[in-house]
Amino acid sequence: MSKEMMISGLEKFPLKQIVDERGAVFHYLKSSDSTFKGFGEAYYSKVNPGIIKGWKKHNLVHQHFCVPFGAVKIVIFDNRENSPTNGHFNEIILDELDNYVRLSIPPGLWYSFKCISESFALLANIIDTPHDPNESEVLPLETKKINYLWK
Amino acid sequence: MSKEMMISGLEKFPLKQIVDERGAVFHYLKSSDSTFKGFGEAYYSKVNPGIIKGWKKHNLVHQHFCVPFGAVKIVIFDNRENSPTNGHFNEIILDELDNYVRLSIPPGLWYSFKCISESFALLANIIDTPHDPNESEVLPLETKKINYLWK
Repeated sequence: MSKEMMISGLEKFPLKQIVDERGAVFHYLKSSDSTFKGFGEAYYSKVNPGIIKGWKKHNLVHQHFCVPFGAVKIVIFDNRENSPTNGHFNEIILDELDNYVRLSIPPGLWYSFKCISESFALLANIIDTPHDPNESEVLPLETKKINYLWK
Repeated sequence: MSKEMMISGLEKFPLKQIVDERGAVFHYLKSSDSTFKGFGEAYYSKVNPGIIKGWKKHNLVHQHFCVPFGAVKIVIFDNRENSPTNGHFNEIILDELDNYVRLSIPPGLWYSFKCISESFALLANIIDTPHDPNESEVLPLETKKINYLWK
């Protein structure tokens, strides 16, 4: 596969883990971070091994993902009209180890994610407005609208 | 021990876990929650089995704890002048199962916590202003100022 172009507006930030013999402090999100848009709600998706959730798209909400336990593969699809990366996919691994990063997702992008660790994974999410079921759209994993085949 | 009186200003909220065969959604904190004071930073303390961290006191910061993985015992000590619960201790278990609750801690209380699960635990924290080392105080676990003996 050719080198992926990062989807416009999607941003990946390395996060510090300050480790000592007692454990660690894992950074996640600060109000001073450049992509912070306000706080509406913090919650977790627990995903069992091998399970794939999606497709989902938020029309208004900005999201900030990290994975403090386990490992998740996220696929992002851009079908926004007028986006310079319209038609692009990004495949991103988030985990508690080498891929401990914050993924900041603007509204309007489709996403789907799979637990790829042996145990379950915890996908943390902070969104800028509290959960509103009317603001998001869903599609089944197999859909003609999104040309991506989960293995 | 006699029935514990909850320390003034300290609040424990049951949190929903919406479970299905794929995993779960774990609630944590919303901007509409009664004890929400603003968003400054979200981070995790990873605590290895048997490890005790503390004592620590924030002089200005409001905290919101939950434990989405593992189990933690937290001890809170109130030595605030003029507090109706001055001199009281609370011992609170937070875990990912029956004790999946949000613990909202006002400034001015001493706290210490221990990982009581077989694996490590993740203590999630959301604070209302970004981390500032000058705003908090620490004491060693054994101190004449706090009459609590960790086993």
